[in-house]
Amino acid sequence: MSEAKRLAGEKAIEFVEDGMIVGVGTGSTVAYFIDALGRVKDRIKGAVSSSEQSTARLKQHGIEVLDLNHTGTLSLYVDGADECDPHKRLIKGGGAALTREKIIAEASKQFVCIVDPSKQVPVLGKFPLPVEVIPMARSLVAREILALTGGQPVWRDGTVTDNGNVILDIHNLSITDPVAMEREINQIPGVVSVGLFARRPADIVIVGGEPPVVLR
Amino acid sequence: MSEAKRLAGEKAIEFVEDGMIVGVGTGSTVAYFIDALGRVKDRIKGAVSSSEQSTARLKQHGIEVLDLNHTGTLSLYVDGADECDPHKRLIKGGGAALTREKIIAEASKQFVCIVDPSKQVPVLGKFPLPVEVIPMARSLVAREILALTGGQPVWRDGTVTDNGNVILDIHNLSITDPVAMEREINQIPGVVSVGLFARRPADIVIVGGEPPVVLR
Repeated sequence: MSEAKRLAGEKAIEFVEDGMIVGVGTGSTVAYFIDALGRVKDRIKGAVSSSEQSTARLKQHGIEVLDLNHTGTLSLYVDGADECDPHKRLIKGGGAALTREKIIAEASKQFVCIVDPSKQVPVLGKFPLPVEVIPMARSLVAREILALTGGQPVWRDGTVTDNGNVILDIHNLSITDPVAMEREINQIPGVVSVGLFARRPADIVIVGGEPPVVLR
Repeated sequence: MSEAKRLAGEKAIEFVEDGMIVGVGTGSTVAYFIDALGRVKDRIKGAVSSSEQSTARLKQHGIEVLDLNHTGTLSLYVDGADECDPHKRLIKGGGAALTREKIIAEASKQFVCIVDPSKQVPVLGKFPLPVEVIPMARSLVAREILALTGGQPVWRDGTVTDNGNVILDIHNLSITDPVAMEREINQIPGVVSVGLFARRPADIVIVGGEPPVVLR
């Protein structure tokens, strides 16, 4: 598995062009991408990071981390996923960085998603869907999501996001219309973001292997 | 003006029933409601507060402040507004407490909105529309809101919300379809909440005056 992650992460370097500011996601597959990015760091201007975890790793490699408010639109965003369907729609947020990841994906022209083969599914929802929630709304949002989706919200106790919020993981979903579910969950007061990337899916998916497969 | 606010705030006490846990908003009109609530505090179980400001005032009156995660659904929420249209749809957030206010309104069976007559408008949008935003998404959200609405986003520099976020105030709007605008702005990654209360409007509006007018 870690070999497939490494192969996916290293393949993504082919999308990095000279002078770019690269959006960088979070997670074990992205860690391989960051390490590969460190080897070509003189070719890029810097990175925008989706988490304190990735920021630390980027800085270890001497890559400058920039503020998205100063960079404007990015050319490229590279990130992993917890699940990926055949339409390149994703579930993300297992690492609790979904909100910042979603912000950078939205701000980027091209979103390259790097996964190992175990992340490919025909229908999203086997992986519990993470939702970032303002702490005082935890019970309210859980009640409304249960009513809306039929899924079982479970509070990821002990986890606090980089934004100071909590995570609900929604179990037992079979998400046949991820665009609609993303839109409806976004309407619930107290929801900061939902880990469905359907309104803005990935543009390219790289599945790690020998050789890696690039889905366009 | 402050006399109209006081009359609206005191009138709202008529909706407080024995044994209730009362949801309490934020602002200068709500302050009069809190003071009146203090005079009947022995009749209520406690309050759920939408801001640190209101929490402090409630505690000064010896009213217990409870956690919404422990109370479940509330019977009554009382809050002010920056604008109110004839359908009881609101703009809120001038005091930067919009997200918590929206959470408590959603969790409440009855939302009583208390205003002075200057807050009544035929069409929402003269008052700049507040949007609470994750700090790193400030520029992204401003660009998308400009493209989506044509309004001019202005960063409320120096303001940090109780949730650690920033506020964009959207100027020059004429909001003919507030339900649609609320829904669309909610889709933008980085938006925590928008100060349009249209999907869940007020149920009752009290306009302060001699005598106060109760719109049902």
